[in-house]
Amino acid sequence: MDPLLVDLYELTMGESYLAEGLDERPATFQLFCRTLPQGFGYLIAAGVDDALDYLASLRFEDDDVAYLESTGLFGDAFLARLASLQFRCDVRAMPEGTVFFPDEPVLEVTGPLLEAQLVETALVNLVHFQSLIASRASRCVDAAGGRRLVEFGLRRTHGLETGLSVARASYLAGFDGTSDVLASRRFGIPPAGTMAHSYIEAFEDEAAAFEAYTRSYPVGTTLLIDTYDTVEGARRAARVATELAARGGRLGGVRLDSGDLDELSRRVRAELDEAGLRDVTIFASGNLDEHSIAELVAAGAPIDAFGVGTRLAVSDGATYFDLVYKLVDFDGRPVLKLSSDKATLPGAKQVWRRVAGGLFAGDVVALAGDEPPAGAEPLLEPAMAGGARLGGESLQSARERAAAQRGMLPPAQRALEPTPYPVEIARSVEELRRSALAAI
Amino acid sequence: MDPLLVDLYELTMGESYLAEGLDERPATFQLFCRTLPQGFGYLIAAGVDDALDYLASLRFEDDDVAYLESTGLFGDAFLARLASLQFRCDVRAMPEGTVFFPDEPVLEVTGPLLEAQLVETALVNLVHFQSLIASRASRCVDAAGGRRLVEFGLRRTHGLETGLSVARASYLAGFDGTSDVLASRRFGIPPAGTMAHSYIEAFEDEAAAFEAYTRSYPVGTTLLIDTYDTVEGARRAARVATELAARGGRLGGVRLDSGDLDELSRRVRAELDEAGLRDVTIFASGNLDEHSIAELVAAGAPIDAFGVGTRLAVSDGATYFDLVYKLVDFDGRPVLKLSSDKATLPGAKQVWRRVAGGLFAGDVVALAGDEPPAGAEPLLEPAMAGGARLGGESLQSARERAAAQRGMLPPAQRALEPTPYPVEIARSVEELRRSALAAI
Repeated sequence: MDPLLVDLYELTMGESYLAEGLDERPATFQLFCRTLPQGFGYLIAAGVDDALDYLASLRFEDDDVAYLESTGLFGDAFLARLASLQFRCDVRAMPEGTVFFPDEPVLEVTGPLLEAQLVETALVNLVHFQSLIASRASRCVDAAGGRRLVEFGLRRTHGLETGLSVARASYLAGFDGTSDVLASRRFGIPPAGTMAHSYIEAFEDEAAAFEAYTRSYPVGTTLLIDTYDTVEGARRAARVATELAARGGRLGGVRLDSGDLDELSRRVRAELDEAGLRDVTIFASGNLDEHSIAELVAAGAPIDAFGVGTRLAVSDGATYFDLVYKLVDFDGRPVLKLSSDKATLPGAKQVWRRVAGGLFAGDVVALAGDEPPAGAEPLLEPAMAGGARLGGESLQSARERAAAQRGMLPPAQRALEPTPYPVEIARSVEELRRSALAAI
Repeated sequence: MDPLLVDLYELTMGESYLAEGLDERPATFQLFCRTLPQGFGYLIAAGVDDALDYLASLRFEDDDVAYLESTGLFGDAFLARLASLQFRCDVRAMPEGTVFFPDEPVLEVTGPLLEAQLVETALVNLVHFQSLIASRASRCVDAAGGRRLVEFGLRRTHGLETGLSVARASYLAGFDGTSDVLASRRFGIPPAGTMAHSYIEAFEDEAAAFEAYTRSYPVGTTLLIDTYDTVEGARRAARVATELAARGGRLGGVRLDSGDLDELSRRVRAELDEAGLRDVTIFASGNLDEHSIAELVAAGAPIDAFGVGTRLAVSDGATYFDLVYKLVDFDGRPVLKLSSDKATLPGAKQVWRRVAGGLFAGDVVALAGDEPPAGAEPLLEPAMAGGARLGGESLQSARERAAAQRGMLPPAQRALEPTPYPVEIARSVEELRRSALAAI
């Protein structure tokens, strides 16, 4: 990651910290949110692995420093400091796939002020976006009730490389595949895809297109049937499937990408069944999200798999949440801000979670040094020591954690229209807040 | 750009085209939208330059082909074809900064089917996102009525590299600067920034923080005054500014980042004026978009500059529009699809624009070979010939085009609550559609 992917103020503050002799003093920053994305009942931590990679590899190369010098904004002492800078902080973080809630630090950085401050923008960016997508995707997984989900968003993500993060985060949350070939390569996510309308149009007629595609892919492929008339397309696909079977091939499925998916899927299912093609599946796509998937499933539409693109890829309707990175302790002194609606809680922390009857039963945000509440498990784990990563895990392992934690979410938070989960701020944190307030 | 940033179906269709002997046949694809983003009256073309760069440099390296081979999905003939693939199509496009509307191709590709199809996802992605951000930013520029606008979105963009596109597209549309240091470096956008609340909190008190920052930046800097109490912060900033002036320095401005920006800006202005600091500007930020900026300006809030972050960076409330890339002609035959609500218009095209009284007076979408309508100018220009880029221009030049075109937009489309602009589909296009329909 380019070290210049910072907000300018991180550099100017850094220069001032150096000038004031504060740059090496110990600071603790926390990454947390104050509210959930619109309509969400929980969040799933993701992007933490990328964030830790960024921190471990942070270096300013000669040409970066030369560019900063050329701006005329910085003095020699600060430029020299940047040229030799390494990230030497300790980091604790929730492992990817962990369910978290507002006021709970998902990641905490402790170390020299200059380094801990410099990484603000990148940490917020990387954890915010992947957590948003993982959480949105997790809601889709619940809505789909066990049906297969494929991520189709690459054309609509905000930036082409961002498609990788969308594919990764949605797979982490339980999706089954992605159309993004590079994401398949990089993360081992099963690749998936059908065909475009243009493929159908490149042939004289729809049947000729179906025949051509199954010549190249005789076993298990999916035909797009809505280019001209969906039900007629289903009949044509059925004829091609029957001929294919006579030659030893097998059509995998058909795809609907427009119209009333509930009604059309029933009519298409009837056509396929009538042709004896009960094993040919129906794949639906077209501006789907967790709400429209839940409606189709509740209506009993005979759809076997969903392709989810735009509305997941841009997280339409819940495009961001207020994840922030805030100073909570500096040079042994608890700190906080009081800005309207943006007040912070001072002190290094731990988040404790109780489980009852196999379900999450309430969390406590406590100071890092507090006694563990009885029967509760800590969520923040050591992730870096002195700037070196500790451990690490596979995407598959994080995916399993997300599935397990989703299974332990109370139905009230897991619902598409959820109610708040109980997060208690420990008395020790409240007391520290009062004493820090008194000191301002 | 990695050539594997494609949807899987582009590769599987390509293999089938090769197998069917269709891969070299001439195809024309168009990039266009059917509707504007929610609430928008126009769009500004952006991302075209990145899209052309992508096309010109498209190559599959040995390791890309080896990966595709390892998936077991593709045969040797297709892999060999990819290994030697170059993009050889002709491209016509609207220059960046051009205002465009639904049904108007913003970019058109003509060439061998395999190559023209393969680039679908990347073209849609690159032009969609930058055009969305440029259009959103252009609305902010109008709302700000000449006040300075700085892009602050890097922590909230969907992916860290995406911050570059947001900074570029918003500068193209008329923003004055960005906080993203790498974007400043890469595109020559003026860098801008103030300080974080954590900076204030790292000092014993707010005045000490202001004094320290102005020691490092004695001329023209901006102080963040809302960490504890905004009006009290303004008084402290005024005292520091007065002492600074006595030493030959000069405070540039103060920044408000929370609370009622209208009320607070008036109280802060009064404090500054009372201290004789009429030249110290007020910079406002905090979840702003074109609507809240327009309200503050209409209310007469004494704000000199706005920092716009999250809501621009994710384009909250208008997160996408339906930009698509569709086949309109293949092998000399006009083609179209009929899918519900997604019908297309066949044939290679040109977009013509009339100007009356210095304002855009209506566009015509015609076939490429049609006679020019009287007094109209064409919007699509040759951009690539046989895969080689023609010309190119600076970001500054595109920025000037955007400003000039915004100035020629009728007030009804330029408004924050706009009405539709007249786009006429030429009779020739309608006739081609009817004859293509008859041939299906």
